[in-house]
Amino acid sequence: MNLDSLYSELTLKTDAKLALIVLDGVGDIATREQGYLTPLEAAATPNLDALTKGSAQGRLIPVAPGITPGSGPGHLALFGYDPLEFQVGRGVIEALGLGLELRAGDVAARANFCTVNDQGIVTDRRAGRIDTKVCEELCEMLAEKVKKIGDTQVIIKAGKGHRFVVVFRGKGLEGPLTDADPHREGLPIPKVEPVKAKSAKAKKAAKLVADFYKAALPIIAKRKPANGFLLRGIAHQPIIPSFAYRYGLRAACIAVYPMYKGLAQLVGMNKLEGPQTIEDQFKRYLAEYDHYDFFFIHYKYPDMYGEDGNFAAKRKAIEEFDAALPILFQKRPDVIAITGDHSTPCVVKGHSWHPQPVLIHSALSGSDKLDRLTETGANTGSLGIFEAKYLMRLMQANARMFDKFGA
Amino acid sequence: MNLDSLYSELTLKTDAKLALIVLDGVGDIATREQGYLTPLEAAATPNLDALTKGSAQGRLIPVAPGITPGSGPGHLALFGYDPLEFQVGRGVIEALGLGLELRAGDVAARANFCTVNDQGIVTDRRAGRIDTKVCEELCEMLAEKVKKIGDTQVIIKAGKGHRFVVVFRGKGLEGPLTDADPHREGLPIPKVEPVKAKSAKAKKAAKLVADFYKAALPIIAKRKPANGFLLRGIAHQPIIPSFAYRYGLRAACIAVYPMYKGLAQLVGMNKLEGPQTIEDQFKRYLAEYDHYDFFFIHYKYPDMYGEDGNFAAKRKAIEEFDAALPILFQKRPDVIAITGDHSTPCVVKGHSWHPQPVLIHSALSGSDKLDRLTETGANTGSLGIFEAKYLMRLMQANARMFDKFGA
Repeated sequence: MNLDSLYSELTLKTDAKLALIVLDGVGDIATREQGYLTPLEAAATPNLDALTKGSAQGRLIPVAPGITPGSGPGHLALFGYDPLEFQVGRGVIEALGLGLELRAGDVAARANFCTVNDQGIVTDRRAGRIDTKVCEELCEMLAEKVKKIGDTQVIIKAGKGHRFVVVFRGKGLEGPLTDADPHREGLPIPKVEPVKAKSAKAKKAAKLVADFYKAALPIIAKRKPANGFLLRGIAHQPIIPSFAYRYGLRAACIAVYPMYKGLAQLVGMNKLEGPQTIEDQFKRYLAEYDHYDFFFIHYKYPDMYGEDGNFAAKRKAIEEFDAALPILFQKRPDVIAITGDHSTPCVVKGHSWHPQPVLIHSALSGSDKLDRLTETGANTGSLGIFEAKYLMRLMQANARMFDKFGA
Repeated sequence: MNLDSLYSELTLKTDAKLALIVLDGVGDIATREQGYLTPLEAAATPNLDALTKGSAQGRLIPVAPGITPGSGPGHLALFGYDPLEFQVGRGVIEALGLGLELRAGDVAARANFCTVNDQGIVTDRRAGRIDTKVCEELCEMLAEKVKKIGDTQVIIKAGKGHRFVVVFRGKGLEGPLTDADPHREGLPIPKVEPVKAKSAKAKKAAKLVADFYKAALPIIAKRKPANGFLLRGIAHQPIIPSFAYRYGLRAACIAVYPMYKGLAQLVGMNKLEGPQTIEDQFKRYLAEYDHYDFFFIHYKYPDMYGEDGNFAAKRKAIEEFDAALPILFQKRPDVIAITGDHSTPCVVKGHSWHPQPVLIHSALSGSDKLDRLTETGANTGSLGIFEAKYLMRLMQANARMFDKFGA
C-alpha cells in the first residue's frame, strides 16, 4: 500500500491548531573558531528553553543525505511533499519570489537583459548590470507591447538590476525547456527545445518562446546595452495536491518575503499580507487563530545572516525570534513545530545538507528531557534523524489527526 | 525523480582529496565479560581522538536492519552502490579473493574437490580435506588439459586445502546457475540449471559447465580421494558503473589482501600493489597524493581477530592502526571517513548486522563534540544511524562536490 494513501485514509477531523515555525537556515555546524558552538547554541533563548522541557527533538534531512536544497525543495518537504516528486522549476521560484501569483500550468522563466552585437552574438550576459530603474522601464515597455502571443497571455515583471521574469499563461503548455542562454559570451542566444523531446505541450511552449523573442527583441533593439535578453529555468508550475485536500487543514501563511508566500500558495495556503516583523507575524496569528487550523510562520533572518557568514548577527536574529515567542504563547497552538528548511552554516555562507534541528511540542510530544533546542541535543532526541517530508505527519499525529492503522 | 540521477546531475568537479579508511569488521558490541567496553572503546587511540573533536559521527547499517553482510555487499555499500541492486555472486568474490582479474561477463564458480564412488555418488564433499599442495597439483593438471571449451576460455586457480575457483571467459554467458553440489553426501553431483529459466545466456553457461565436467572428470578419475569436484555460487561479474563515471573521481585502492583489491577493481579503482602494512599503505597514499582524488585504504586485522573472538588482539590491531595515522596526517585529505564494512563482534566470532561506527572529518563536517570514536558515542552523532550506501554521498557533500538542488 502506498504510504500517502494510508495517511490519507487514516486522517480524522479535529479542532487542533497546528503551527509550523520555520527559522530559515537556522541549522549550523560547530567549529573550533566559534568555540564549538553553533549560533543556536550560543544564543540566549529563555522562551524557547521553557518550551523545550516538554518537547520532542530530532533532526531533519532536508531532501536526502548530502543534498543541499534551495528554498523550494526545502519548504515543499516541510509542507509534507516529497521534493523529488514535486519539483518546482527555477523560473517558477523566481516568479513567486517577485510576488507573481502563478496558476498550475503557467510557464515561467528567469530572464535578464543582455547585450548582443549586430550579428546577434551575446557580448555581455548582464547588459553591464543596468540599474533596476532601467530594467523596470524596459519591462514596462515590453509588457505594454507584448500582452499576448496567439491565445497565450504574457506577463513580464522586473526584478533587481538586470533581472526580470516572464510568465506565459495559456492552455496546453509545459516545461521544462532548455535555456535561451549560451551561458557564456561570444555565442548567439540558442533556440529553446523541450527537455523531454516527446512532449507536445513542451513543443508548443518552445514555439511560444521563439515567437516571444521575435516580438520582443525589435522593441529593445536600440536600447544598448540592454538590447537583448536571456531566458533560463523555463518550467511550468506543477500540479500539487492542495494542503486542504492532502491534510484536511485550512492553512494560512504568515511570511514577510514574497518567495515563501509563493511557496505556501503553491500548496494552496492562504497568504496573510501585512506583517513585517516576527512580532507582527505572531500578533497576526493571534488575530487569525479562529479562522485557520494550520499556520506556517516564516522567519527569514537566520538564513540571511548565515549567508553573510555573520555568526553574531545570526545568533542575534535567533534571540530576537525568541523574544517574540511569548506573543505566540498567548494562545498556544496545540502542536508547535520549530525548525528550519535547511541549514545555512556561517562557515559555508550558503545553504547546506546538514540536518536541521527540529522540536515538536504538544500534549503528546513527550519530553526528551533536554533543556534547550540545539543541534547537538537534537541528535539525541526521540524523533531521530529523519527526512523532512515526514514532519507534517508527526505534527498530524501529535494533533490526534490519525486513526489507528489495523486492528 | 530517481535519487541517483539527482546526485549525478548535481555533481561538480573539485580539487578535493577524499580518503575512505576501512577498518574491516571494526564494529563490536559491549558485553559484561569485557566490562561493557568494545575493542574500540578499550583501545588507546590518541591520534584518532585528536581527529574526533572536529568530526561528525554516526553509525552505518551495512545493508538493511538485521542483515549480516559478507565482504562483497559490505564494501559495495561503502563504495556507494546499493548492495541489493548490485549483487556479486559468491564465485566472483572467491575469484577476486584469489587475485584473479575478472572482466564484466566472466562467469566464476567456487569449486572444491570431492570424493565420488563408482556410481558417481558423492561420498566425501571435501575429499578428506586434501593438502593445498595436492590441490595445486590437481589444478595445474586440469588447467593444462582444459584450456578451452568451444570458444570459451577456462581459467582454473587453486585456493587453500580442497578449494579452487573456475572462471569461464567467453561471449554471451550469464549466471546465476544452480549449484553442481548435492550439499550432502550420498547423492550424485546434480546438473546445473539457470536460476532464471528464460535466460539464453544462462542456458549457454549451464551447457558449458556440463561440458567442463565431461572434459575434466576423466582427468582426475583415478586421483582418489580427490576424484571429483563440486561447483557452487556460479555467477557472472555484473556490469557496475565505474567510480569515475559515477562520481567523477580518480580512485585508488591501497589494500593488502586480494579480495579487497578485487572488490575495488570491480568498481574501477586502480589497485596500487606493494604495501604490506598500514604504515606502508599510508606512505603509499602520501606518494600517490597528486595522482588520485579518492583513496580507499583497507585494514584487515580488526575483522581477523574479531573472527577469532580475540578481544585483546582486536584492540591491539586498532591501536596499531592509530599509531600509523600520523603518516596520513602529513598530507591530510580534505575529507576523511573512517569506518568498517560491518561489525565483527568478538562474541559472534564472525560478521554481524550491528551498525558500524563512522566518522567524517572535513572543514564542513562540523563537530559533534565527542572526544573519541566509539560505538556508544557514535549513537549520538549528527550523522545518525543510516544505510552505508549513503556514506559516499556525504563524503561528496563534505568535499563540496554537489551543486544546490532547486532554487
